Amino acid sequence: MAKYSIQVSELFHALADPTRCAIVGALAGGARPVSALAAPFDMALPSFLKHLGVLERCGLIRSRKDGRTRTCELVPERLCEAEQWIAQQRAMWEARADRMVDFVERLHREEQGK
Amino acid sequence: MAKYSIQVSELFHALADPTRCAIVGALAGGARPVSALAAPFDMALPSFLKHLGVLERCGLIRSRKDGRTRTCELVPERLCEAEQWIAQQRAMWEARADRMVDFVERLHREEQGK
Repeated sequence: MAKYSIQVSELFHALADPTRCAIVGALAGGARPVSALAAPFDMALPSFLKHLGVLERCGLIRSRKDGRTRTCELVPERLCEAEQWIAQQRAMWEARADRMVDFVERLHREEQGK
Repeated sequence: MAKYSIQVSELFHALADPTRCAIVGALAGGARPVSALAAPFDMALPSFLKHLGVLERCGLIRSRKDGRTRTCELVPERLCEAEQWIAQQRAMWEARADRMVDFVERLHREEQGK
């Protein structure tokens, strides 16, 4: 649990920035060369490359170089890990909420049965 | 899109820490008094309260005070927002991947039809 939380918190750290969220959103539409990916952002290229570095180090994106062009693509498996972690917490919470409803309903029936 | 990304990146910032991930995990099992919640963490209470503050400000948890006891609980709707954002990106990526497969299959059929 502890190890898994550390890994998943790294993914959330990578997504904890509006620029990096927007990069993930852009790459969800398909692989893009860095120059095309950077174009809509009002940001110096070195700053933009730092954001790409954060996403690449935690495995949310990968890049390859063809000649002078570097192309980035999303790694959906890593996105899945973050999604699954959240879904697990929600499922645990919902199971608990269901048990609470059952408990209150049982109390109510017992109260009526008296 | 930009506004939504800023909101969702706040959620990811709140989850971008192993302690805060573990707090969310603990609260997924049900509401807990702060003292019981803090007990398993090897951390001074003021530092622990700062983590609770980050989670509460972005709406992932809420707390109420009964006498001298403050109790925290998860806000599953906010967890859902983060989950839905990730699911949307993945769905967009998968739709793109499906289109790529269709395109390659069509090319292949056209090639065979020659």
